[in-house]
Amino acid sequence: MSGSAPADASAGALSVDVVPLGGLGEFGLNMMAISCGEATIVIDAGAMFPEPDLPGVDLIVPDLAYLEARRGQVKALVLTHGHEDHIGGVPYVLPLVSGPVYGTPLALALVEPKVEEHGVEHGPGYVPVKPRDVVTVGPFTLEFIRVTHSMPDCVAVAITTPQGVLLHTGDFKIDQTPLDGEAFDLPRFAQLGASGVLALLCDSTNVERRGFTGSEREVEDAFEEIFTATEGRLVVGTFSSSLYRLQILVDLATQFERKVAFVGRGMERNSQIAQKLGHLHLPTGVVIRDSDVPNFPAQDVLCLVTGAQGEPNAALSRIAINDHRHVRLGDRDRVVLSARAIPGNEKAIGRVMNHLARRGVDVITEADKHVHVSGHGSSEELKLLLSLVRPRYMIPIHGEFRQLARHARIAEVVTGGLPEPVTVLMAEDGDIVRFDAQGGRLHDKTPTGRVLIDSTRVGEVNDEVLRDRRHIAADGVVVPVVAINRQTGVVEGVPELLVRGFVTADDPDILGAAAAMLSEVIDGCGVEERTDPGLMQERVRTEVRRFLRKRTGRRPMVLPVVMEI
Amino acid sequence: MSGSAPADASAGALSVDVVPLGGLGEFGLNMMAISCGEATIVIDAGAMFPEPDLPGVDLIVPDLAYLEARRGQVKALVLTHGHEDHIGGVPYVLPLVSGPVYGTPLALALVEPKVEEHGVEHGPGYVPVKPRDVVTVGPFTLEFIRVTHSMPDCVAVAITTPQGVLLHTGDFKIDQTPLDGEAFDLPRFAQLGASGVLALLCDSTNVERRGFTGSEREVEDAFEEIFTATEGRLVVGTFSSSLYRLQILVDLATQFERKVAFVGRGMERNSQIAQKLGHLHLPTGVVIRDSDVPNFPAQDVLCLVTGAQGEPNAALSRIAINDHRHVRLGDRDRVVLSARAIPGNEKAIGRVMNHLARRGVDVITEADKHVHVSGHGSSEELKLLLSLVRPRYMIPIHGEFRQLARHARIAEVVTGGLPEPVTVLMAEDGDIVRFDAQGGRLHDKTPTGRVLIDSTRVGEVNDEVLRDRRHIAADGVVVPVVAINRQTGVVEGVPELLVRGFVTADDPDILGAAAAMLSEVIDGCGVEERTDPGLMQERVRTEVRRFLRKRTGRRPMVLPVVMEI
Repeated sequence: MSGSAPADASAGALSVDVVPLGGLGEFGLNMMAISCGEATIVIDAGAMFPEPDLPGVDLIVPDLAYLEARRGQVKALVLTHGHEDHIGGVPYVLPLVSGPVYGTPLALALVEPKVEEHGVEHGPGYVPVKPRDVVTVGPFTLEFIRVTHSMPDCVAVAITTPQGVLLHTGDFKIDQTPLDGEAFDLPRFAQLGASGVLALLCDSTNVERRGFTGSEREVEDAFEEIFTATEGRLVVGTFSSSLYRLQILVDLATQFERKVAFVGRGMERNSQIAQKLGHLHLPTGVVIRDSDVPNFPAQDVLCLVTGAQGEPNAALSRIAINDHRHVRLGDRDRVVLSARAIPGNEKAIGRVMNHLARRGVDVITEADKHVHVSGHGSSEELKLLLSLVRPRYMIPIHGEFRQLARHARIAEVVTGGLPEPVTVLMAEDGDIVRFDAQGGRLHDKTPTGRVLIDSTRVGEVNDEVLRDRRHIAADGVVVPVVAINRQTGVVEGVPELLVRGFVTADDPDILGAAAAMLSEVIDGCGVEERTDPGLMQERVRTEVRRFLRKRTGRRPMVLPVVMEI
Repeated sequence: MSGSAPADASAGALSVDVVPLGGLGEFGLNMMAISCGEATIVIDAGAMFPEPDLPGVDLIVPDLAYLEARRGQVKALVLTHGHEDHIGGVPYVLPLVSGPVYGTPLALALVEPKVEEHGVEHGPGYVPVKPRDVVTVGPFTLEFIRVTHSMPDCVAVAITTPQGVLLHTGDFKIDQTPLDGEAFDLPRFAQLGASGVLALLCDSTNVERRGFTGSEREVEDAFEEIFTATEGRLVVGTFSSSLYRLQILVDLATQFERKVAFVGRGMERNSQIAQKLGHLHLPTGVVIRDSDVPNFPAQDVLCLVTGAQGEPNAALSRIAINDHRHVRLGDRDRVVLSARAIPGNEKAIGRVMNHLARRGVDVITEADKHVHVSGHGSSEELKLLLSLVRPRYMIPIHGEFRQLARHARIAEVVTGGLPEPVTVLMAEDGDIVRFDAQGGRLHDKTPTGRVLIDSTRVGEVNDEVLRDRRHIAADGVVVPVVAINRQTGVVEGVPELLVRGFVTADDPDILGAAAAMLSEVIDGCGVEERTDPGLMQERVRTEVRRFLRKRTGRRPMVLPVVMEI
């Protein structure tokens, strides 16, 4: 992994720093800063949803200290595509960006309402780009290159710097038969490779999988079988951003004469945006409102729903416990989980499946039929890209340490025998990778970490947008402890509320009142909800937060402990 | 699912109740009571390890209210095999059993030290049984029948009752080439089927998998490749009860001239027990102590280690953060995870893999090579058993609700077209399934649930063995909240301790002292340990418990909250 000799071109030129701020050493919250002289650009600004062991938090974004220190010098925010783990942090990053936001029309369409919702205005504006477009930002020239992924309108970015070309892949797989005909721009990658790439910054998500990932179209056969065999309602849970998947399902619904309802906020919003931009074609008369679902015969309906990861508040979780306003399922109905389980969500998904089984609903997953295909390239695709681009350096991005390390091994296997093997730079969040006359190397570290966001503050965002949870004493902590009999759903004893740094002196009854409120709320839930610790945890958290906010105007961190006994 | 007409034989005879107390509607803690007149027998007495969201607890066992109400009438405890989810609760159940414990020699050898450790003496003693043995217990006649599974010496139990034969499969797959030649007794299952089985109680664990599970031998090829290709130390993480797996690895080690070290308490203990009983053949001179590992060249060592589920205190976790006394790994060494991830453990396993990747260690999992095969039968094996036994009733056991429901569907598919289709009785923990002249049906419910065990009480066990955590106010609750920077491992601020019901009046400094102690302990941990929330949570819990016990003699429930920020 030692650097090779400096290239002549770069001698005397300004050095370039590549600074991963998120997504290297972890999944989610992808963000990469690139600095040269007085100019910095940022590629992506992702967020991450907290794991269940961090229940006081709504969203996690990268620490922005590096960008804060460069206030006024951050010349552009560049988005590779519109997934949450690439754009979810935009509202928090934008106040630090003094130039425009570049992105494809779909990525921008998904970002703009999110930013507006946070009350942030961005003077420098949004610049839509299309593949092969070239823009100049300070010392950088950016070219956008089409890649394929699980959603449309994704790009890689080739950044020409004084030290050479940095090629950032974004997220990708090589889909040879993309549904919209927008092919992965292999020829441009090859050209760039031929003219010399300093460093390839390459997606490592699926490096542990063998072979090729396969086209989005691959699910068509399995779904055709499912449409043929389903007698009742058909409900498909998938990511609302998986627009190819949605298109395939809409087309099959049209063919099998089912009406389509988009159920869940994300589904409604994304399907509207995608339709407007031409990424989702909805034949006239096919779409119905979710409130119309009960008015159609079961066999005439397809519901596309949010919640395939078992998220407690999403449509599928509510449907599973028979608590959805419009969609109620029974014996002949069928649910398809058309998504992989994100590690950590297995138990929550299992609980949703148990609830559905209690309704008599048949549940089909990836284990049963080929109803999901990943959006990230497997090891053969990563090898192909390396062979095509032949960079001097490779920085594995997007993965936990073990994926990055595996990617490094692949680079050794592919290029180890060549006259000029690729030098892998293993960087993690906060590392400063410097390219200069001496080549590329880990040069220094910058402070980094995670910022935990409490979304009850939505709408208050501006420069104080970052509600940093680091000092938990600030508003205090409240830990409601509830013990529930897992068979009967009965609360054992009275809920307890432990507090710290949350002042109760001027309202001494508040904890007793909160406990009484909790008992009442839990009694009002159905047995299925009460005996599901995941759902109860979310419910307890929401109710306690709301109660304390109303009564005190304060927002302590609420960390519910729900014990199933 | 309605019962068929009563059989003549059962008219006027005593009714029989089948009462699942654990394992139906959940994985783990398998326990089934069977009652007739004044006599009850118990099949298995399993335990379950808590999920990370129940961090104050060491072990979970079923609620024993049903057995307590029958004190003096519980005539036997019958063990199908020696896995924790079938024997882990024995020390807690035994005080309620007034007859002997029946089990195969291996199952009993694994149970007895566990019971002794808890200071329980069992007067009625232990009765070793072998396949085809028949014993009579009150109105029941029990016959033990060989089945195959991931460990040796497993049996099913055919229980002849006044209402007919109940056939309880225990855990099984149909291994056509068992390593020890002890074949699944298909002929006896067929005979029983031919002479009439009232109800089949059948393992549902793997009902969602298609096809046949395959023999334990199937991993041989993959491991042979791995032995051939590994230049440094080879470390295999697997369950210490997977004795076939261990035998295959010992044989390969002998062939490839590696010494074998059993690392971790479970590995040491189980390998000794298995060797004594002839279930593990260790050629002379092959086994070395773990303390000898550093004295052998890397390429001459195979370590068989505990911790393949990412358990924070197990050998593999310590090895992964370079904190094991004897085993330290580096660049050319290789770790194989020869186990499936139990749902809920994915993140912890991922963390161990990340730590190992940091050491430069190559990690091989099921995703890379065929290094693991399940011990439970897949759907074709379940169908085969149904076709062979043709019971009047089937009760799916061992699974969450969705697996039980899927198993019911399989029974419909297999027998739905027959003149006498199987009637499936969908029971969950606490249901009383009654068989009498009217046939079989869900008759009533008995209180059930989970009892959470705090193992710091080991050795104090007798009739008060059950430290029921239901009333959390009893000894109080302590919630240590620690915020750690995920990059640097630095503790942000001072750890906070929230308390409830834990009296601090006579020692007002205790919380401050505990916080100071925690800060010190965390400072003393390596960065890798500090930045791993799973490991830190376990560490914080252990240290706080120890501190409070020493200083106050009391044992509050400790629920650590470790925030990675």
